[in-house]
Amino acid sequence: MLNAVDREIPEYLEGYGKMKLFDKFKEGSVKDLDRFQDRLVYPNRKKIISSIKRAVEAVGLKDGMTISFHHHFRSGDLTINLVLNELASMGFKDLIVSASSLTDVHAALIPLVREGVIRKFETSGLRGGLAEFISNGMMEIPIQIRSHGGRARAIVNGDLHIDVAFLGVSSCDVYGNANGFTGQNACGSLGYAKVDAEYADHVVMITDNLVECPNIPFSIPQNQVDHVVVVDKVGDTAGIMSGATRFTKNPRDLLIARHAADVVEASGYFYDGFSLQTGSGGASLATTRFLSEKMARRDIKASFALGGITGQIVKMHEEGLIGKLLDVQSFDLTAVQSLRKNPNHYEISAAYYANPDDEGSAVNQLDVVILSALEIDVDFNVNVMTGSDGVIRGASGGHCDTAAGACVTIIVAPLLRGRIPTVCDRVHTIITPGKTVDVLVTDQGIAVNPLRPELQERLMKSGLPVCSIEDLKERAYKLTGVPREIRVEDRIVGVVNYRDGSVIDVIRQVAK
Amino acid sequence: MLNAVDREIPEYLEGYGKMKLFDKFKEGSVKDLDRFQDRLVYPNRKKIISSIKRAVEAVGLKDGMTISFHHHFRSGDLTINLVLNELASMGFKDLIVSASSLTDVHAALIPLVREGVIRKFETSGLRGGLAEFISNGMMEIPIQIRSHGGRARAIVNGDLHIDVAFLGVSSCDVYGNANGFTGQNACGSLGYAKVDAEYADHVVMITDNLVECPNIPFSIPQNQVDHVVVVDKVGDTAGIMSGATRFTKNPRDLLIARHAADVVEASGYFYDGFSLQTGSGGASLATTRFLSEKMARRDIKASFALGGITGQIVKMHEEGLIGKLLDVQSFDLTAVQSLRKNPNHYEISAAYYANPDDEGSAVNQLDVVILSALEIDVDFNVNVMTGSDGVIRGASGGHCDTAAGACVTIIVAPLLRGRIPTVCDRVHTIITPGKTVDVLVTDQGIAVNPLRPELQERLMKSGLPVCSIEDLKERAYKLTGVPREIRVEDRIVGVVNYRDGSVIDVIRQVAK
Repeated sequence: MLNAVDREIPEYLEGYGKMKLFDKFKEGSVKDLDRFQDRLVYPNRKKIISSIKRAVEAVGLKDGMTISFHHHFRSGDLTINLVLNELASMGFKDLIVSASSLTDVHAALIPLVREGVIRKFETSGLRGGLAEFISNGMMEIPIQIRSHGGRARAIVNGDLHIDVAFLGVSSCDVYGNANGFTGQNACGSLGYAKVDAEYADHVVMITDNLVECPNIPFSIPQNQVDHVVVVDKVGDTAGIMSGATRFTKNPRDLLIARHAADVVEASGYFYDGFSLQTGSGGASLATTRFLSEKMARRDIKASFALGGITGQIVKMHEEGLIGKLLDVQSFDLTAVQSLRKNPNHYEISAAYYANPDDEGSAVNQLDVVILSALEIDVDFNVNVMTGSDGVIRGASGGHCDTAAGACVTIIVAPLLRGRIPTVCDRVHTIITPGKTVDVLVTDQGIAVNPLRPELQERLMKSGLPVCSIEDLKERAYKLTGVPREIRVEDRIVGVVNYRDGSVIDVIRQVAK
Repeated sequence: MLNAVDREIPEYLEGYGKMKLFDKFKEGSVKDLDRFQDRLVYPNRKKIISSIKRAVEAVGLKDGMTISFHHHFRSGDLTINLVLNELASMGFKDLIVSASSLTDVHAALIPLVREGVIRKFETSGLRGGLAEFISNGMMEIPIQIRSHGGRARAIVNGDLHIDVAFLGVSSCDVYGNANGFTGQNACGSLGYAKVDAEYADHVVMITDNLVECPNIPFSIPQNQVDHVVVVDKVGDTAGIMSGATRFTKNPRDLLIARHAADVVEASGYFYDGFSLQTGSGGASLATTRFLSEKMARRDIKASFALGGITGQIVKMHEEGLIGKLLDVQSFDLTAVQSLRKNPNHYEISAAYYANPDDEGSAVNQLDVVILSALEIDVDFNVNVMTGSDGVIRGASGGHCDTAAGACVTIIVAPLLRGRIPTVCDRVHTIITPGKTVDVLVTDQGIAVNPLRPELQERLMKSGLPVCSIEDLKERAYKLTGVPREIRVEDRIVGVVNYRDGSVIDVIRQVAK
C-alpha cells in the first residue's frame, strides 16, 4: 500500500506488527490553517479565552463531574467562590468539589449547596460558616477529608479523578506556563495545584497577571493547560498571612516551644545535617526560634526543612542554619518572596511531599516534625479536625503524613485550652493514629509514646520533665473535671480518610 | 465494625460507598522497622544499591522487557554499553532497547545483538558500526525510528511502555533527586530522560557523583526513582561537543547561512519577540551569527530559542538578543554551563518540547526553525536518516516535530555534497514530509514550497535569489548527471514513524 507520501508500506511487518500508514497533509500544508481540520493540534494556538463561562463550555463540563481547586491563597482565596458562582449561574448541578483545602471564606458556597449546585466536598479541612453548616447536618452527602499526601496518592492512582481543575495563579502566559511566586498577588508554591494540573482531564488557569511568553520559571507547564482566563483579582495575599502563622507572644506557647526544642536536642536526631518540618501553630512556629539558638550554639545545620514554609524557617535558611527549603505551600509572604529569590528555596509537589504509595515521598526523610493538636488521647491519637463542641474547625493537612514519615513526631499543645483538656481519654476525631506519634510536649510536662522507650530514656537522661500521658490527662481532668462527652447524632457528615485511603474515622452531626 | 483505632465505621455509607477500614499499625509503631511488614513504604529508606546487577534484580527485569536510555551524552555515552553488558553477563535475552538516540559508540552492542541479548532497537537515530550492521540486514527485527516528539507522545500515551529506565546522571543524591548540569561529567539538560523517568515502571539512576541530599534543583525528582547506582564514570563530556555542533569555517556553509539569515529577515516572521530554533548542522549553526548581526542592527530581540541549545544560542542569550532558552538537550559544554548559571536558560522535557498530541507543545510556538538535510526532494520531503549509499547515518531528532510546528521551516543544505546532489527527485528515506517544509536555502539558490506563495513573494521582493526546487534539482543533475538509484533489497531493516506514530517510510537492507 502507498502512504500519503507515496511510499510502499506493507500492511504487516514481523517484529513490528500492523503498520498504520502515514496519511496526513494530503490536501495542503500543516500550516495552512484554514484548509485543515484533521491535524492533531492547532499550531501556535493561544489558549486565552475570554471568560470562565467560555472555558467551562470549551472543556465540556457536565453535571455531576468533579472539579478541583488549590488553597494556596488560604483565606484570601477568590477563585473557588468565583468559579462556583459562575457554574451556578450556568445551571450546573451535583458537582463534586475537590479542593486541597477550604477556609472560612467558602461560607459563600452554602447557597450553592442548598441549590444543588454542589453535591459533595472533598477537602483537607474547613472552618467557619461552611464547616458549621456541614457539622449541623445540612448537607445530604458526607464530606470527605483527605491529608495532603492522601489526596496526592488518590489523584496519582486514580481514586480521585478530576474532570476539570480551575487553578488560580498570580503569573501565567497565553499558553498556560504559570507560577505562583511572581505577580502582585503571589501565593508562593503551587505544590498542591501541580498534582491537579498533571492529572486532571482538563486544566483552566485563572490569572490576574498575564505575562510575556514563555513564562519561565514555571511551576505548571503549558502542556498541561487547556485554557487561560484573565480575571480582575485571583487572590488576596492578605489572606495568606493568616492567623495560624503569626508569631506567638503567649508565654505558655513559648514555654512549650522551649521544651519542644529541648526534646529535639535530646532526641538523638539533632545532628549536623538533620531535617525538620514545623507546623503552623503558635507553639510549633515558636519552636524554630529556640531551635535556632541551639543550632547556632552547637554549630549544627539542618540539611533541609520541608512542607509548609514560614518566614521563621526562611530566616533560618537565610542565616545558614537550614541548607535547603522544600516548599509545598508558602505559609506567609516572607516565604513567598523567598521562593522567588532564594535558589535553594525550592517548590515541590504534594506527591513529592507526601504520597504514601511512594518511597520517594519526602516526609519519609524527615528526622523531626513538630505538629499541633486540638486534642490528643492517651493512645497518642491526634485530633486536628473537630473542636470541643464537635464542630469542624481544622484541617488534616500533612499531619498524618509527616507523623508517619518522620523519625521523631513531636506534638506541641497546651494541657488545657480554657476549661477544656487537650489530653483526653479519647479524641473526638482521629486524624493521626497514635502509633505514628512519638512525643507530646505540653506546658505541664512531656509524655513519650511507650512504643519508643529509647526515646523516653534519652529525654529523661537530659533532665526533661517526662511523665506518662495518663499522668498528663489526670492532671488536666483534676483541674477541669472529667470533660462532658460531645453529643452527636448518628448521622455521619464527614468521612476521614487516612493517607492510604482507608477510613480512620467519621464525623457525626453535632446534636441539636 | 471497629477499625484498628477502635472507631465504629459502617460498612457502607450513602454518598461515599463501601468503607475500607483503617487497619494499619496494629502491632506497633510505623517507625518500628523490625516489627513491621505491612506498611506501604519503608520510611527513610535510601535507594542506593551497590551494583547495576543488584538494581536489575531489585526491579525484577525479565527477558523480553523494554529498557530505556537517554542520549544526552551523545558520543560520550557510557551508560548504555555498561548496562547492556551487565545484562548480557546476567543472561538476559530478547530485550527491547529504547534509547532517545544511539551513536557511533554503540557499535559495541553488535555482539549482544548476535547473542540474542538485544532483540530490537527503538531510537531517534544511529551512526557508525551499529548503523552499518543494521543497514546490512544483520538484525532479525527491524529497528523503529521515532522523532523526539513522537517518542514523548508514545511514552505518554502508552504506545511505548518502558519497563525499566536506566538513566545516567552527573549529579544524584541517595534518594534519586538528579540533574545533569552539575558534577564533573555534566551533560546539561535531561529533557529526554525526564519523560522516561516519569512514565517508566522502574527507574534506576546511574551516577558518578553522589551529592548531599536533597539535591536541588533537580530535573528528575526522587519520587520517580527506584534505585541509585554509583559507577566510576557516567559519561565522557568530550563526546557532547561532537562534530555536529562545531562552528563552521566552510565558505559554502557560510554563504548558505548568510542567505538563511536573509530569508528569516524577509519572511515576515522577523519581529521583536519572534522565536527560533536552529539545528546542529554547520550551516544551521552559522546562521545564528548572521542573524545576530541583523537583530542587533534592527533592534529585534527573540523571546525564546527552543530545542537543542548550542554555545552560539547561549552567546545570543547572554548578549540580550534572546530572552529565554528552552533547553531539551544541551548540544555543547557552553550550553551545559549556561543551563547551570543562567536563570532564564530553562530545562524542558521532550513532551513539553514536541509531543504532537499536545497543544502545549513548544514547537507549535516557533516562528522560525532552521534545519539541515542529507537530501531533499522536489516535493520538499527531507531525509536526515540515510546516506547516499542507503546506509543509516543520521537521526530523526526534532526535525519533523519542529517542521510541523514552526511558522517558517527553513532547510539549509549545499546543492551538492561531493558528486552527490542534495536536491533530488525522491529522497531515499522520508523523515519530514514536504508539506511541513517551507523554504530550501542552498549555496546555489533558494526555493520556496509552492504551498507558501506569500512567502515566495516576500523573498523575491527582498531580492533574494529565488528559483523553483525543480530548477535547483536540474542544476545539480546537470553538474553530476542523474544520480544512480540506491540499490536495496526487499527486506525492511527499519521502520520510520512520523511523530503521530504512523509509518511514513521504511528503510530497506542495502544491496550486497
